[in-house]
Amino acid sequence: MVRVYNFSAGPAMLPLEVLERAKDELLDWAGTGMSVMEHSHRGKAYVERAAAVEASLREVMGVPDNYKCLFLQGGAYGEFAALPLNLSAAGQSIDFINTGDWSTKAIAEAKKYAVPNVIASTKEGGFTDVPDADSFTVNPDSAYLHYTPNETIRGVEFDYIPDSKGLPLIADFSSTILSRPINVTDFDVIFAGAQKNMGPSGLVTVIVKDDLLGKARVECPSVWDYTQQAAADSMLNTPNTFGWYLLGLVLDWVKDNGGLEGMGQRNKAKADVLYDYIDGSGYWTNPVAKRARSWMNIPFLQPNAELDKQFVSEAAKAGLTNLAGHRSVGGMRASIYNAVPLEGVQALVEFMKEFAQKNG
Amino acid sequence: MVRVYNFSAGPAMLPLEVLERAKDELLDWAGTGMSVMEHSHRGKAYVERAAAVEASLREVMGVPDNYKCLFLQGGAYGEFAALPLNLSAAGQSIDFINTGDWSTKAIAEAKKYAVPNVIASTKEGGFTDVPDADSFTVNPDSAYLHYTPNETIRGVEFDYIPDSKGLPLIADFSSTILSRPINVTDFDVIFAGAQKNMGPSGLVTVIVKDDLLGKARVECPSVWDYTQQAAADSMLNTPNTFGWYLLGLVLDWVKDNGGLEGMGQRNKAKADVLYDYIDGSGYWTNPVAKRARSWMNIPFLQPNAELDKQFVSEAAKAGLTNLAGHRSVGGMRASIYNAVPLEGVQALVEFMKEFAQKNG
Repeated sequence: MVRVYNFSAGPAMLPLEVLERAKDELLDWAGTGMSVMEHSHRGKAYVERAAAVEASLREVMGVPDNYKCLFLQGGAYGEFAALPLNLSAAGQSIDFINTGDWSTKAIAEAKKYAVPNVIASTKEGGFTDVPDADSFTVNPDSAYLHYTPNETIRGVEFDYIPDSKGLPLIADFSSTILSRPINVTDFDVIFAGAQKNMGPSGLVTVIVKDDLLGKARVECPSVWDYTQQAAADSMLNTPNTFGWYLLGLVLDWVKDNGGLEGMGQRNKAKADVLYDYIDGSGYWTNPVAKRARSWMNIPFLQPNAELDKQFVSEAAKAGLTNLAGHRSVGGMRASIYNAVPLEGVQALVEFMKEFAQKNG
Repeated sequence: MVRVYNFSAGPAMLPLEVLERAKDELLDWAGTGMSVMEHSHRGKAYVERAAAVEASLREVMGVPDNYKCLFLQGGAYGEFAALPLNLSAAGQSIDFINTGDWSTKAIAEAKKYAVPNVIASTKEGGFTDVPDADSFTVNPDSAYLHYTPNETIRGVEFDYIPDSKGLPLIADFSSTILSRPINVTDFDVIFAGAQKNMGPSGLVTVIVKDDLLGKARVECPSVWDYTQQAAADSMLNTPNTFGWYLLGLVLDWVKDNGGLEGMGQRNKAKADVLYDYIDGSGYWTNPVAKRARSWMNIPFLQPNAELDKQFVSEAAKAGLTNLAGHRSVGGMRASIYNAVPLEGVQALVEFMKEFAQKNG
């Protein structure tokens, strides 16, 4: 078996150790004579594991007791609807900072339920930077401030936490959760689709501060009602049991590799290798302002875009896969989530060097 | 490795061949050097497989071209909200037949968005029968008629298809999909959580007739908007890629085992073995009217309910697991979905015989 280096933006590469363990126990999990997929979510064995995974997430991220951890379905895109339905009143305004495609989608979805108020946007600059920290003013009457710490498609990342002036701060951490230490208490809701740094797709984690519960509108679907799901330990309905289980294996791997401190060091080193090479190459460019460069999603362009397809296809043949940029922006993009090793980034840089030499 | 016979109501037993294949290719799927979980849902390999799974479902179930097959998240419980948001106007009535816990939940959820009109209910009789086919009248102004062909918790199944008098007929097939041949054209929407006969939890399949598209309310969450998801081949957002893939393996297994004809024969034989034994045992009873007995979920009671825990625990030790009745009704229940072999039902009957002899 030859495993490739997978630079997919999500679903994304998973740690080999995680996949190996899942494979080992796929037919007989925890000595139960069943696959974990075949377990009732109400059975003792699964309920205990699910609780252990939550405890593990709390330990790894340092989630305080006054935050609930929910394991839901519908992805981050589903949360774009669930958030206003849980946290805002009809007709109330919601503040947004728009730094790219995912903020834009969140704003469009919120408009179905509330009045989005875009207090800062980097759209005019082509979403290649974050706004200055002192360039926006929140509306004190808004239900909350929603922003996207990392925009996956254009590789733009906040280098600061916006001051929400007392409004609840909601952060879409889909692409950066578990990638380095954060202070959970800096946020009121953290949510993340699992399919980048947490596990397979079909699971979304929502970490929500207790004092935001109890505000869901009547028309909030029950399966997305944070209060109901918190009371039911995320089992009001059948959860994605396999995804939840696999998140547990990923968290074990994170702990075995230095926790979030270890992830952060490793991810910074990986990003430095790639950005340093790009900046010094005289061939490749990254369009993002230096202060706003993502550690996780790194777009790169070459002088002649007509060679992009050739690059992506030759790289794939060399075992470096999923390097095409998002279909909406073109170019190339390397997503280097937790599971992509430094060796993978080094191999990519070597390949980019050769390609630049041949075509530069 | 000792595999048990798993009578869980869902997530439920999966065919051993399916799990073995998933295990074999878990680290390197289709020669790509990646797990199927690590593939981008926008990549060629995964997109082709997803389309092949849909084609397979269409083939196995005989889904005509004027029906869309959607692969969504949020479970059947999520659909209880998605259905009124897609198919009814605010303030419009929706007809329901209430035959148990899942119908009851669907009615409660619909009330958030529309006006449920329960045209028949078997609640007074303790949900142990279906209503007579000529005992109810639909409201011609209702958006649709919703019913539950099989109620998982109490093991009650319709032996006929309700005449909806021209209203769209919506059927919650969670527990009976793929269990025998049906005519898809008898229904306007068929939906089913995957975790019983289709695969792992976290995936819900919706088969919807074309002429019902285009009616979603503005406030329908995008990820649940049938029209948007149909246009995007269920990839408006990242789907549950592993669940979708595993459904494909299950469908291959169904085809290898005689298709839905084969499933139907096998399931009828299994149900007959268990009901025949229960009825002749002089010890065990099944509370459901004979015409309404489920092939999939078979509750059974003993004279002294205080022995229930002992039965469930001793059975588990004998490799017959998850036989406790639903926490809301007690007693015992054997869910004998497609993947439970006849030998499993025979082993259960032998165990029940011994238990009855000792305790009767």
